[in-house]
Amino acid sequence: MLRRRFLALGTAAGLLGGGASSFAQADPLPSWNDGAAKKAILDFVSRTTAAGSADFVPVDQRIATFDNDGTLWTEQPIYFQFAFAIDQIKALAPQHPEWKDQEPFKSALADDIPGIVATGNKGLLEIMAATHTGMITEEFSRTVLEWITTAQHPRFKRPYIELVYQPMLELMTFLRANQFKTFIASGGGIEFMRPWTEKVYGIPPEQVVGSSGMVKFELRDGKPVLIKEPKVEFIDDGPGKPVGINRFIGRRPVFAFGNSDGDQQMLEYTAGGDGLRFMGLVHHTDAVREYAYDRQSHIGKLDKALDEAVQRKWTVVDMKADWKTIYPFERK
Amino acid sequence: MLRRRFLALGTAAGLLGGGASSFAQADPLPSWNDGAAKKAILDFVSRTTAAGSADFVPVDQRIATFDNDGTLWTEQPIYFQFAFAIDQIKALAPQHPEWKDQEPFKSALADDIPGIVATGNKGLLEIMAATHTGMITEEFSRTVLEWITTAQHPRFKRPYIELVYQPMLELMTFLRANQFKTFIASGGGIEFMRPWTEKVYGIPPEQVVGSSGMVKFELRDGKPVLIKEPKVEFIDDGPGKPVGINRFIGRRPVFAFGNSDGDQQMLEYTAGGDGLRFMGLVHHTDAVREYAYDRQSHIGKLDKALDEAVQRKWTVVDMKADWKTIYPFERK
Repeated sequence: MLRRRFLALGTAAGLLGGGASSFAQADPLPSWNDGAAKKAILDFVSRTTAAGSADFVPVDQRIATFDNDGTLWTEQPIYFQFAFAIDQIKALAPQHPEWKDQEPFKSALADDIPGIVATGNKGLLEIMAATHTGMITEEFSRTVLEWITTAQHPRFKRPYIELVYQPMLELMTFLRANQFKTFIASGGGIEFMRPWTEKVYGIPPEQVVGSSGMVKFELRDGKPVLIKEPKVEFIDDGPGKPVGINRFIGRRPVFAFGNSDGDQQMLEYTAGGDGLRFMGLVHHTDAVREYAYDRQSHIGKLDKALDEAVQRKWTVVDMKADWKTIYPFERK
Repeated sequence: MLRRRFLALGTAAGLLGGGASSFAQADPLPSWNDGAAKKAILDFVSRTTAAGSADFVPVDQRIATFDNDGTLWTEQPIYFQFAFAIDQIKALAPQHPEWKDQEPFKSALADDIPGIVATGNKGLLEIMAATHTGMITEEFSRTVLEWITTAQHPRFKRPYIELVYQPMLELMTFLRANQFKTFIASGGGIEFMRPWTEKVYGIPPEQVVGSSGMVKFELRDGKPVLIKEPKVEFIDDGPGKPVGINRFIGRRPVFAFGNSDGDQQMLEYTAGGDGLRFMGLVHHTDAVREYAYDRQSHIGKLDKALDEAVQRKWTVVDMKADWKTIYPFERK
């Protein structure tokens, strides 16, 4: 059905003078190699949107949720938000001379990741508190935006914001063209993502679900502001993802994409609704162009969710085989 | 400027054969009498959206938030969600024979509102727990939708869903036509509003901010579901409104409308941003067509916020004088 529509599109464009190249343009997922994953996406969208289809999904139910780290952009060698926190520790260090002898700051200043990890949850929370709290929400947004467009990824030597996946950008654009609403449902910090998701992914701030800290309304210099407080409000990971999706979106998704065990419950929740559903996982299999990791990884561990995906015939994207292009900058 | 655009529209429509009646149609707020409130709205939208205006607001910053109870629909003689809870107690009573001798249920079954209020916060929470928790989120949505379209308001003898304010429907439509995004920020329950806000107000579920209870992800009969738990998660009222707005929307509104002291911090937060802002209050002054109440009311008390509005020259809508029509059904 969809193929027929492509043919129709191609033909119409041909009549207008485009010929064979217009036909090629009609592929909505040009960075995806032909294969099972691409076919599953095209089939799902065709079957849920074609008038009269037995699997038709009304527009107000076309909810698609995407994990962020490892699903829409790279998450190695460390979560980018963690790299941001370490850079902020360095930026703030001149005001905190005591940090050079005090963990976890000492390790952070030395880029000693295992050293930070050795300080445990307490150390991680101290780094988050020092870098993510105490300021006005709008100040934090500005700091994030500056960092994400200027700091460079250690391997690719490019701003972090360029390390988004071209095939997933195409997928989200394709879904939106078919009247799906696209949302992020990430374990990452909601205020770390919102300043840039609209520009980069086409997802406005209110369609971003994530982990959060408390904020407090107060008057500062007579001006009403919100202050970020050192207290965790919500962790949007694992069983927290369906909870966060319900809280922010209020509907069960019909389409969901993740890449790790932290996405398993989101995929199960999506699969649990009536009618046709799409559940997808990005499997990082490309050490040359990106990274290769799964069951043993400390970041983005994909183990139980992979077993469930194979067993229930969910779509597993083999990054190496399925993606023609990984990053937008490769196409230049 | 806006008036000029109306003239242009009217003229263009006239050329197409509509004449004087088309000119009248160009008024985007036909249920508002000409007066200071209507003028303030038209001026604000004109100044913030006209290209080249000194007060121009970029589209991604055009965030408008509305309280619900008393701002978009009636809240007397009791909050409609409370009427829903009492009706649910009655519906569940056959399964709870002990309720007829046990407060607060005894009072609820007798429609004895003062009796319920006398049981205090504990009694109110017991009623909420009995009627709003223990079920799957989707079940609760269905129950709300059925009640709101069939139960009748004691005075108007119409389904509660018909008691929305026609002038506010026009205002939201007008804002959206000018690329504002409209959100609800209500002290009411988020899951009580979401099932019907898109159909009635044109506001989709993810643009509804409200109070919430905890939900828990679990497998029920092998199916992944979310269960509503008897534990308060968030109260979106007073200083909670800016917090809820930040959590769900992630931007400071430029336009906000409320009707009670519970909206005061939302209006202050809105006013606290840079550039031109609009802060509005609905003042219930019409005992004949709706209700008249303010400083002494137990429901929708408007006292401190009214003083601040007068002092800071925010827009105060005098329902009796400013609204030509109150409910959509009056126009039939």
